[in-house]
Amino acid sequence: MQRGCAPVLCVLAVLGLQSAVQEECTIVRALRGKLAYQQRLQYTRHYFPINYTVNVHFHEVLRAANVSSLRARNASEPALRYLWLQVNSQVLRKIGEVLLEEHPSWEYTRDLRRLLEQLEEEYESYNQGNVDPAVWEIVEEVLAADAGSSRKAVRPKALLDNCARVMWLLYSQLCH
Amino acid sequence: MQRGCAPVLCVLAVLGLQSAVQEECTIVRALRGKLAYQQRLQYTRHYFPINYTVNVHFHEVLRAANVSSLRARNASEPALRYLWLQVNSQVLRKIGEVLLEEHPSWEYTRDLRRLLEQLEEEYESYNQGNVDPAVWEIVEEVLAADAGSSRKAVRPKALLDNCARVMWLLYSQLCH
Repeated sequence: MQRGCAPVLCVLAVLGLQSAVQEECTIVRALRGKLAYQQRLQYTRHYFPINYTVNVHFHEVLRAANVSSLRARNASEPALRYLWLQVNSQVLRKIGEVLLEEHPSWEYTRDLRRLLEQLEEEYESYNQGNVDPAVWEIVEEVLAADAGSSRKAVRPKALLDNCARVMWLLYSQLCH
Repeated sequence: MQRGCAPVLCVLAVLGLQSAVQEECTIVRALRGKLAYQQRLQYTRHYFPINYTVNVHFHEVLRAANVSSLRARNASEPALRYLWLQVNSQVLRKIGEVLLEEHPSWEYTRDLRRLLEQLEEEYESYNQGNVDPAVWEIVEEVLAADAGSSRKAVRPKALLDNCARVMWLLYSQLCH
């Protein structure tokens, strides 16, 4: 129970939070299925030319090590999940942009994008005011227009590998 | 009937030639089916990332205009067909090299390569001695190892468009 609220309001607040987490975890489980190794392998490696790369912002290469480093700087877990969401929405948009609708991976990337969009609705209230400054700085850079020298050529599967691993890291306790 | 041979031998020579042409045309018809517009579109455009290119030797971009120019320099029709065959065997090898076996276009490019290999058997006796020097020079350049500055980045579909159009130009009379 939270301190400083009337018992009935506290119960409602907890129930509301639980329902939001349940919703979030339903989407995360669907994402986990879509991001299973065999699917990543098929749709982002087998179905692309060998050594094909997508140009992304270097912050869009969000690895487990980056999350650990931000955790060490006291970034909150919801802020880190918000960062992961923003980064991967951009990553999926960029992979989708190089595919025609008839490409056999198009539907896969569209489904992932839609799941991320649903998750984004759960983070609607997030903005500069309630995200740690260190995380917000990265979010802003990711959302900003292309920044020439900060670009990196990365294989689509490597991008989705990061997406899956960091998701596991950030949601395994919340949605076990 | 050819001049300078005994009637029986002449008949045999003509029959042999007819059978070789028939064999060649059977393969060309199979190629024509495989190179139909819808198949080229699906396997070399839809199934590749937008703006994806393959690096080829500039002689491997063999267009109808190049054939007209070689015809104007008196290159024989069989020599031009031999050139087309050599160029497109290389082109198909290069497209195949960027694909994993699990890629949905792999089987298509392998089938095309096999048909070109079958056609190549019909041209087994071709060598420097009986191909026009102008054509042979190009064949040699195409078959030579990579020549740095002579490389060109071309979309897979554009390469197969050339392959199909030049085939039509060179075989439409022989295999109508």
